[in-house]
Amino acid sequence: MSDTVVGIAGTGRMGTAFARRLRETGTPVRVWNRSSDRTGAAVDAGAEAVALEALAEADLVLLSLTDAAAAEAVLAGMGAALAGRIVVEMSTLLPDQAEALEAQATALGAQFLHCPVGGTVAPALKGQLLGFAGGPAETLEQARPVLERLCRRVEHLGSVGAAARMKLAVNLPLALYWQTLGESLLLLRGAGIPAEQAIGLMAESSGGPAVLKNRAQVVVETLEGADQRGTFDIAGLAKDLHLALALAEREGAALPLSAAAEERYRAALEAGLGRFDGASLARRTAEG
Amino acid sequence: MSDTVVGIAGTGRMGTAFARRLRETGTPVRVWNRSSDRTGAAVDAGAEAVALEALAEADLVLLSLTDAAAAEAVLAGMGAALAGRIVVEMSTLLPDQAEALEAQATALGAQFLHCPVGGTVAPALKGQLLGFAGGPAETLEQARPVLERLCRRVEHLGSVGAAARMKLAVNLPLALYWQTLGESLLLLRGAGIPAEQAIGLMAESSGGPAVLKNRAQVVVETLEGADQRGTFDIAGLAKDLHLALALAEREGAALPLSAAAEERYRAALEAGLGRFDGASLARRTAEG
Repeated sequence: MSDTVVGIAGTGRMGTAFARRLRETGTPVRVWNRSSDRTGAAVDAGAEAVALEALAEADLVLLSLTDAAAAEAVLAGMGAALAGRIVVEMSTLLPDQAEALEAQATALGAQFLHCPVGGTVAPALKGQLLGFAGGPAETLEQARPVLERLCRRVEHLGSVGAAARMKLAVNLPLALYWQTLGESLLLLRGAGIPAEQAIGLMAESSGGPAVLKNRAQVVVETLEGADQRGTFDIAGLAKDLHLALALAEREGAALPLSAAAEERYRAALEAGLGRFDGASLARRTAEG
Repeated sequence: MSDTVVGIAGTGRMGTAFARRLRETGTPVRVWNRSSDRTGAAVDAGAEAVALEALAEADLVLLSLTDAAAAEAVLAGMGAALAGRIVVEMSTLLPDQAEALEAQATALGAQFLHCPVGGTVAPALKGQLLGFAGGPAETLEQARPVLERLCRRVEHLGSVGAAARMKLAVNLPLALYWQTLGESLLLLRGAGIPAEQAIGLMAESSGGPAVLKNRAQVVVETLEGADQRGTFDIAGLAKDLHLALALAEREGAALPLSAAAEERYRAALEAGLGRFDGASLARRTAEG
């Protein structure tokens, strides 16, 4: 599929990063966005901005939209022009939302994959995302050359619902970690241990997640008083945490730590911290 | 201090591992245990089993005991014979417990350090623990050559209370992680994703802690139905979590996730899972 033309619906932060990375690997890219003034960065990287109808003429269409309703509207907009194309929905969804989009796309004659990713803009630009793919194995094999330009690893989980669940499961510990870190740091109150030393030790311990090593500087600067813009920010973490809790509630499953964390995220959003890195939630907790 | 004689009070799992590692590095070791029949493994490794009075004649005495009360009794038992020695208390304690032991030891004329460690038997045997040291810097410099035979890194945190706090702060995320992992896995219920695949992806994601990579096999086997003996087991995790909550409560600090996790640990202990790896708590949660 080296000449595969890739269409991208949605040029938000992630859609734009997909476009830039695919252009860098020599892939022809078409982009569409509901607000057409937001395609500039993708076009600067060599993508062609097109109307929705022309996007459906791409061999493979990536959906990187706000939510399931936006994806549904875009699929409806492309309509029968999608017949014979491959649609890959990349956002974090509930399993039944992914299944409904799959039904809609296949009814239009398209092949459909759900492939939410782990990682945000920086790994996307380096082709280092983690792809959680669901849908027919043969469709995935057709899409794999394109997905592997974005991902260091593309894992087939089974159905589109299984992929949706895996993404929610992978994101949950990250959301909970920021509150956990805050509770840990609260134990250090008054001990006079510098943030850099504490974070260095927590990162090196067996309970320390990769994010603490990868983003140590952001975390330390946040704890020292300067909230930092996040790529996977508090608003995004809260949104995915909410999806996980909605799924669990529907299935009668109890997630006590997640529920307690959600209250903290709600308070952080009310305090206007939505655009900041998760470390700002830890700091808020650590301040007691 | 290459000829420093090291005394070890307490030959439980950790004390025995300290003795074996120190013997392996050529250090002369004396051991004492309240139940003298538990010194066998240390003696087999070349340590000399002695009476408490003789232990106090070592240059440096490590305390690896059940709790602060046991440490207090052992210090009292050694009494004035400790004058001029260095005492290093290695267990997880509350800050004020560490301070009380420091006062007791210095009143006997000894120098005192608190140095709880991160890591259990396997890293101890390889000299790969993480040491959280508190006490006078000059005492630490005298003890450092011995501590570095046990630890890959010995970090001076300041006072003995600061070291105690850092240890509690480092352990908290590990205790909370097992419950967090269980909540994540509960989201996968019915998706048909094999445990090995799910754990592999969680370990590779940015919220995945080091323990999930290091102990993946134990976690997968546990999730597949076979509870595994833990070195840092559910009983130990629950004990340290309880210390953290006791400290927070005393200081009026709210730790909502930790409090929710403690309920889960209590239930796991009641279900007889105390001797098993933390993964057994995750499994119990994942079963809903």
